[in-house]
Amino acid sequence: MQSGVIEGSKSPPLRIEADYLVETIGDPRSAVETMAGEQSSGTFVPVPGETPELKARSAARVERLEVFDERVATASLPTTAKASGEIHRALATLSWPIENFGPSLPNLLATIAGNLFELRAFTGLRLLDIRLPQAFADAYPGPRFGIEGTRRLAGVKDRPVIGTIIKPSVGFGPEETAALVERLCAGGIDFIKDDELQADGPHCPFDARVKAVMAVINAHADRTGRKVMYAFNLTGDLDQMRRRHDLLLAEGATCLMASLNSVGPVGMIELGRFSTLPIHAHRNGWGALTRHPLLGWSYVAWQKIWRLAGADHMHVNGLSNKFFEDDDSVIASARACLTPMFPDKPCLAMPVFSSGQGVKQAPGTYAALGSTDLIVTAGGGIVAHPGGPGAGVLALRQAWDAAVAGIPLDQHARDHQELAQALGAAA
Amino acid sequence: MQSGVIEGSKSPPLRIEADYLVETIGDPRSAVETMAGEQSSGTFVPVPGETPELKARSAARVERLEVFDERVATASLPTTAKASGEIHRALATLSWPIENFGPSLPNLLATIAGNLFELRAFTGLRLLDIRLPQAFADAYPGPRFGIEGTRRLAGVKDRPVIGTIIKPSVGFGPEETAALVERLCAGGIDFIKDDELQADGPHCPFDARVKAVMAVINAHADRTGRKVMYAFNLTGDLDQMRRRHDLLLAEGATCLMASLNSVGPVGMIELGRFSTLPIHAHRNGWGALTRHPLLGWSYVAWQKIWRLAGADHMHVNGLSNKFFEDDDSVIASARACLTPMFPDKPCLAMPVFSSGQGVKQAPGTYAALGSTDLIVTAGGGIVAHPGGPGAGVLALRQAWDAAVAGIPLDQHARDHQELAQALGAAA
Repeated sequence: MQSGVIEGSKSPPLRIEADYLVETIGDPRSAVETMAGEQSSGTFVPVPGETPELKARSAARVERLEVFDERVATASLPTTAKASGEIHRALATLSWPIENFGPSLPNLLATIAGNLFELRAFTGLRLLDIRLPQAFADAYPGPRFGIEGTRRLAGVKDRPVIGTIIKPSVGFGPEETAALVERLCAGGIDFIKDDELQADGPHCPFDARVKAVMAVINAHADRTGRKVMYAFNLTGDLDQMRRRHDLLLAEGATCLMASLNSVGPVGMIELGRFSTLPIHAHRNGWGALTRHPLLGWSYVAWQKIWRLAGADHMHVNGLSNKFFEDDDSVIASARACLTPMFPDKPCLAMPVFSSGQGVKQAPGTYAALGSTDLIVTAGGGIVAHPGGPGAGVLALRQAWDAAVAGIPLDQHARDHQELAQALGAAA
Repeated sequence: MQSGVIEGSKSPPLRIEADYLVETIGDPRSAVETMAGEQSSGTFVPVPGETPELKARSAARVERLEVFDERVATASLPTTAKASGEIHRALATLSWPIENFGPSLPNLLATIAGNLFELRAFTGLRLLDIRLPQAFADAYPGPRFGIEGTRRLAGVKDRPVIGTIIKPSVGFGPEETAALVERLCAGGIDFIKDDELQADGPHCPFDARVKAVMAVINAHADRTGRKVMYAFNLTGDLDQMRRRHDLLLAEGATCLMASLNSVGPVGMIELGRFSTLPIHAHRNGWGALTRHPLLGWSYVAWQKIWRLAGADHMHVNGLSNKFFEDDDSVIASARACLTPMFPDKPCLAMPVFSSGQGVKQAPGTYAALGSTDLIVTAGGGIVAHPGGPGAGVLALRQAWDAAVAGIPLDQHARDHQELAQALGAAA
C-alpha cells in the first residue's frame, strides 16, 4: 500500500492528535476552543486553580482550523443553543499531552470522543482520524496474527482468503451446521464464520457446535493437509469468552470471532491479551456511530482503536453492499486497515469484505484496493449458488483469479462454468 | 415513581422485545420485515435450510407497526437505496425468541442493535425501548448498592446526594486534589467525583491520588462520623481496574467511577461482578449514539443494559444543561433509571444530574421528577461560588430544601446568604 508506507514512515506525534469535521452556528473558532477546554482543563466557568502553568501543562490545543468557504443552509443536528448566524463547517485538529491520562485506550476514548458530541456549540461533530504517540504502541499488543499469521493458518498465499458465513444465521443446530461445513470444506472453502447472531443458544450451544464443526474440519485437514479456518463467535461475558477460547484451542480451531460493540474496548483489550488465536472482529452496531455524516466516527479513526487492542480481521462492508454505505467509503476503510499505525509496529489487520458479496465485486475490489490481502465472505453468494456451495466457492475463486489477471469476468466465464452460473444467478 | 410501579408490576415478556422509530422511503412494512429477517434467520437471498420449521423456531416477529399519518419531506439519513415514494415514519416493535442466543447482554446487543442501523431500507432507525425476559434478571447481578446502598454509604437520607466534580478536570496533582477535597469536606459535601478526563497520568497517578484524597476523607470521617463518598475514576484495562478497585477497598473508599463507552459491555459486566463498591457510571461518548433524533439509541433503552450489568449511578445530564439536550429528555432519562426493570429485580439506579448544574435547577428537577433519589453534581456551581466551595455546598442544599418544601428560591434566599450569593452569581 503506497499510502500505508507514506503514513507509516512518519514518526508518531508527541501529543495525541484528533481530526474533526465540525459544524457550528456562528464562529467555528470559538466553538472549537470551547471543545478544547471542555476536553481538558477547562469548564464552562473560570474556576480557581486553573492557572497559566496548569493550562500550559494540561490544556488541549487547537492545532489547525480550516473553515470551508461554503455555508450550510440547515443545521445538521439539533441544539438548544440560542446562537444565530451563518452555519459553517470546518476541519479542526486538536492535540492533548499524553500526560493527561497516560497511554490508555479506554481513557483515550473519554478524551477524544467523550462529552464533546453533546456540546451545543456544535450542530455537527465527527471524529475523522487520530494519531497516537509511540507510548500507545508500547502499551498494547496489536494484532498477533494479522495478514501473515492468517495466511499461514488458513494455508492461502497470493490471493484473497475466500470465505462464507453460515446461513441461515440462526436456527441450525450443531449437526446441521457441521453438515454444511462438510460441504463447504469439500468445495474448497478457505474460511467460514458464524453469523454474529449465532452465539450460545439452546438450539445451537457453542460447545456442541465447536465439537461438531471441528470434527469435520479436522477430518478434512487430515485428508487434505489444509485446515479450513472457522471463526467461532465467542462473544459473551468475560468468563464465557475465556472458557470458549480454551475450548477452541483444545479442539484445534484456528480463529475466533467477537462483536466489537457487544464486547467493548476493555473486553476486546483483554481478549487481545489472552487470545492465542486470530481475532475476527465483527463491527455490527457500527451504523449507529457512523451513519449520519456529521456525527460520530469515521471508520478510519475507529478501526485504529481495535487494531491496537489486537483485532486481526476487521469488517469493512463490501462494494455494492446491501447496506447504506457507498463504495468509496468501503475502500477507504479497507485501505485504512492496511495502513501502518506506527513505523515499528504497523498493526495491520486483514480487511473483511462482506454483505451481499459475490463474484461481481471481485474486479472492482481488486482495482480499488490494489491488494489481495483481504478476506471476502459471501453468504448467499456461496451457499445459494445454483450448483451448491462447492460451486459457489469455485466461482468466487475464479472471479478473483480473473480480477488479479485483469481478465473481464464475462470473458473468464466462457471456460469457467461455476463463474458463468454465478454471473447468471447474480444478473 | 408511579410509572415505575406500573411498568414494574407487569410480568416480563417471554420473548425479547424492542421498539424502534423508523423512517423509510416507500413501504414501512416491507422495510421492517427486512429488518426482522436480517436480524434473525433470514438473509438477502433465500438459502437452503431456511425451512418453515426453522423460521417458526428462530425468526424475529413484527409485533406492531404504527405508521404516522404525517409524511416527511427529506430523508433523515443517507442511503444508497434506489427506492422512491413517500417518506414514512413509524413505530415498530420486533420480538425474538430468547433461544436464539440465550440470556447474554453482549449477544443481545448484536441482535437488537447490530447491523440494522446500516440497512439501506431505512433513512432513520432509532432504538426506543427494550423489554427482556426473566432469564436476563437471573443471569446478571444488577446494581449491588443502588439507591439504598448509596444513601447508607454516603450517610444521606430524604434529600438528594449533593456532589461536585473536581475542577479543573485535569492538571491538579494528588496533593492539590486532596487540598480541594479537604475544603469540600469541611463545607459539608456528600459526594465528590473525578472528572472523566482524570485517570492515571504521571501528573496525577491514580494510586497517589487515592491515597492523598482518602487520607483527607478518612480523617474527616473520624472527626465527624460521616464519610464523604468519592467516585474515583478507575477506567482502564481490566487488570488496572481490578488492581485499582482493590486499592480503593484497602484505602476505605466507598465508590468507583467508570466510563461506560470506554469500558464497554463486557468490561462493565465484569466490573459489576467483582466490584464491592458502588459503580458510578459516566456516559461520556453517549452523544454519538443519540444526538441525531432518527439514529442510534434512546437513553430509555440504553440505560437498561448498564443497570442490569451492575451500574449503581447513571449520568442523565441535567436541566438547562450546557449540552444539546432538552429538559424533557433529561427527565425521561432520570425517570427511566427509577423505573423497575423486573417485578422481582427492579435494578434501580440513582440518576446523576450534572452539566452546568447549580441552585437554579433544584425546583424544576424536583417538580419534574417527584423524587429526591438522585445525585446532583455541580462543578463550577460549587467550586466557583463567590464564598468558596463550602458556601457552594450550602447554597445547593438550601436550594433543594426550598424545592422540596415548595418555597420559591428567591424567597428562601432572603434568609439564606449562600443561596442568595449563588443566585446572584448565576444571574
